[in-house]
Amino acid sequence: MQDSHISLAHGNGGRYMRELINELFAKHLNNKQLDTSLDAVTLPWPHELLVFTTDGFSVQPLEFAGGSIGSLAVHGTTNDLAVAGATPLYLSLNAFIEEGLSIEVLERIIIDLAEAAQKIGVAVVAGDTKVVPRGQGGGLYLATTGLGVKTRALSLGFDQIQAGDQLLVSGSVGDHGICVLLAREQFGLQGDLASDCASVLPLTQALGSLRGLRFMRDPTRGGLATVCHEISHATRLGIRLQQSAIPIKPPVQAVCDMLGYDPLYLACEGRVVAVVAADVAEQALALWQALPHGDAAAIIGEVVCGSCVVLQTELGGERILEELEDEPLPRIC
Amino acid sequence: MQDSHISLAHGNGGRYMRELINELFAKHLNNKQLDTSLDAVTLPWPHELLVFTTDGFSVQPLEFAGGSIGSLAVHGTTNDLAVAGATPLYLSLNAFIEEGLSIEVLERIIIDLAEAAQKIGVAVVAGDTKVVPRGQGGGLYLATTGLGVKTRALSLGFDQIQAGDQLLVSGSVGDHGICVLLAREQFGLQGDLASDCASVLPLTQALGSLRGLRFMRDPTRGGLATVCHEISHATRLGIRLQQSAIPIKPPVQAVCDMLGYDPLYLACEGRVVAVVAADVAEQALALWQALPHGDAAAIIGEVVCGSCVVLQTELGGERILEELEDEPLPRIC
Repeated sequence: MQDSHISLAHGNGGRYMRELINELFAKHLNNKQLDTSLDAVTLPWPHELLVFTTDGFSVQPLEFAGGSIGSLAVHGTTNDLAVAGATPLYLSLNAFIEEGLSIEVLERIIIDLAEAAQKIGVAVVAGDTKVVPRGQGGGLYLATTGLGVKTRALSLGFDQIQAGDQLLVSGSVGDHGICVLLAREQFGLQGDLASDCASVLPLTQALGSLRGLRFMRDPTRGGLATVCHEISHATRLGIRLQQSAIPIKPPVQAVCDMLGYDPLYLACEGRVVAVVAADVAEQALALWQALPHGDAAAIIGEVVCGSCVVLQTELGGERILEELEDEPLPRIC
Repeated sequence: MQDSHISLAHGNGGRYMRELINELFAKHLNNKQLDTSLDAVTLPWPHELLVFTTDGFSVQPLEFAGGSIGSLAVHGTTNDLAVAGATPLYLSLNAFIEEGLSIEVLERIIIDLAEAAQKIGVAVVAGDTKVVPRGQGGGLYLATTGLGVKTRALSLGFDQIQAGDQLLVSGSVGDHGICVLLAREQFGLQGDLASDCASVLPLTQALGSLRGLRFMRDPTRGGLATVCHEISHATRLGIRLQQSAIPIKPPVQAVCDMLGYDPLYLACEGRVVAVVAADVAEQALALWQALPHGDAAAIIGEVVCGSCVVLQTELGGERILEELEDEPLPRIC
């Protein structure tokens, strides 16, 4: 690593974070099951495929319109299992609680977490709490680890992606990022936008038996643009997105215009990006649009030969979407 | 809960922490697999018993004689699997990294973690990093979740414990607690004491096929006295410990005498407390004493009718060991 100290950019989902993970964590923890490019790892098990994933949460504020760090901790991890084609079964929960946190707030968060888990049908079966001294934590950090099962038939992955495949997104992008930003009130902005924080399991299950389904991922830190970069990196193919096709809610676009954010880099917490063979793209779209959380789903671009992530703008121009380097919004998830 | 805000006492392994866990977390996350009195939960699985556990780590300083938060994060979680009678297979790793942490220090910690994992034969197959802003973290917090397997034959648990059973400890108590305290240098004390931070897997495997093995636990936060309270709580039986039999290293006792700590409440990170039937106690002791980490093992007390944890002192008196309430050493594990 070139840097000598950790900066916030090491946490943003972009290039610095990739370097931190690959050049420190993955290098030393090297084993054949550890693949840092996956959302969830499939482990060998005698008679079933066991899928295993983990995620940490440090969102600030702890509660926001549409959810809290509690439901986020359930959705973030179970969504990683879902996009890997698995059905979530069990969760573990770690809580790092800062001295002085209001127990009333903590209880609301745990209830929000418990309700999210119950709705998905996943059980929190192991947990641990640590209390850290005042000033040594940001109120509450959570980490959840998920276990799920998947059938052997479903093979999804970067290696299935081919030039000509189509990209779909299940709904509008950037809602979670802007909603958390508004909840911080630091810009004096108000709005009735809610986070998209939700389980994507109905969305991933809807595509589960679709022949021609290549890959699914939930765009969280770094947003849609970062998922496109991850696909491009892993496949050595390019991505061409159609700006006019990408669903963005007007209030999200308005806040982005005011503050200079690009919604394509903002976190979602309840969306799926899917790559499918061109001949099943319309079928996949119809399957999603039939679901309550998929009514705004769209075909947004395609996989092409090349190595760039390019946005075809509404005016007919082209813009290269660079890999994320700076930190747009710390503590977003 | 009676309290309105989190205090450090909610993290100390004693009564307040038990209230926090039972009256907030367990109450809302209620499901039939969640048992907060266990180190690791055994989950139903088609053909093998899957054992699942999680632990968070916030030790300060991050490095100390005999280990670091890295090896601690491996041993803490795999030891919970080991005392549940399981063989650890896989780990997930969450890192909450504070902006400004030295990457050199982080790399040493990850190497320490990787070496500990390799030695035990457990693979870190999933991970996540979050970077939190300067002043919102204590340098580094880690959480690990472990997966292991166990054979159906081995049934261990509080419900196996009977009056008359003997208690064994695998080595000296309080080394980790005092070692971390010395590493903080806040008392100007120095010593060559190293933490007992280590895998207990050889110790638990040695007793694995012993008929009459009832229960095993690693005494971490809250120490030996807290394990005795957990046993007493769950079984509604008493524990009688023989002070003269409990192995305590002279430097640990000396620091405790100077600062007013009780070594029976200090954390270990590589010891096991086992409860065995009286007629196999000597055999269990011999099995442990034959191992490199078990040479100081001892039979330290017995399960009795009653409801107290009592220490029979070297002078022939008796002292009731109360349940831990205040925080002896924050950020010890």
